[in-house]
Amino acid sequence: MSPDLIGYGAAILTTAAFVPQALKSWSSRDLSGVSLSMYSLFTLGVALWLLYGIVLQSWPIILANCVTLVLAGLVLGLKISHLRRK
Amino acid sequence: MSPDLIGYGAAILTTAAFVPQALKSWSSRDLSGVSLSMYSLFTLGVALWLLYGIVLQSWPIILANCVTLVLAGLVLGLKISHLRRK
Repeated sequence: MSPDLIGYGAAILTTAAFVPQALKSWSSRDLSGVSLSMYSLFTLGVALWLLYGIVLQSWPIILANCVTLVLAGLVLGLKISHLRRK
Repeated sequence: MSPDLIGYGAAILTTAAFVPQALKSWSSRDLSGVSLSMYSLFTLGVALWLLYGIVLQSWPIILANCVTLVLAGLVLGLKISHLRRK
């Protein structure tokens, strides 16, 4: 099994896991159960993984973290606008 | 900035993000708001990232995913035992 195939499998699974959360937050706009500190740490961490993937020239790391950055960033943005509205 | 330093920064942030969730699930034993499909996909994905890190011999990927695998696996295990008790 090639390393890239393992990486793409890993990337698809950990990215797919965030899709239901992002969809739920987007459609319900109910962000009360979502932790601001978790998503702040996570979004910043994903941005660093993206940079690490670029330095390593690892496409599975780059692609996975591009998509996860959009999804986690969306949840974080909704959470911040939810806090501002209160 | 060395690649490993970026990788360790990324690893610490995305791993730390799961600590509050794991602690909350462990102490409250309230798993109703946790999605079984999200944690099943995520735990399997993290196991594949660990394998990818071993193949690439990348210590940031290996260490981050070892810790995240324990945290995500703990939440998944609590969720499964929560479903069985119902």
